[in-house]
Amino acid sequence: GDIAAGKTKSATCMACHGANGISQIPMYPNLAGQKEQYLALQLKAFRSGERKNMVMAPMVAGLSDADIENLAAYYASLDPSGK
Amino acid sequence: GDIAAGKTKSATCMACHGANGISQIPMYPNLAGQKEQYLALQLKAFRSGERKNMVMAPMVAGLSDADIENLAAYYASLDPSGK
Repeated sequence: GDIAAGKTKSATCMACHGANGISQIPMYPNLAGQKEQYLALQLKAFRSGERKNMVMAPMVAGLSDADIENLAAYYASLDPSGK
Repeated sequence: GDIAAGKTKSATCMACHGANGISQIPMYPNLAGQKEQYLALQLKAFRSGERKNMVMAPMVAGLSDADIENLAAYYASLDPSGK
């Protein structure tokens, strides 16, 4: 995935998952430093409906495979401690 | 949740999610430093079948609510950078 393109696409994600990938909401996960492959698999699972989530489903509905790979690369690249 | 009790219970989790909560397997998530509430919600979702996963389902089948709260507290307490 392309980290810079993922960063651009991440504007939608920031309100819940934090500008630095550290969630602002206890029931939502941190994404910073998460495994790239895991992130991509989960975004695809939300998109296909395999992983059902009423918040995430509309967020990912318009994402292409490339968007997902880029977002996964971006969040995986962030410092997991939020710095 | 009780961090020490969660650590004891985590023996089963370590093979995939790492002794320090950093996954050894790219398709599986890091757990170290993840939000406690998110971790508990996901373990409960695997247990109820709301989140379907053939690997996780048998892992969580025998967990009580207290076990889940303890595991969530333990993994949330770990350093997200794996140190």
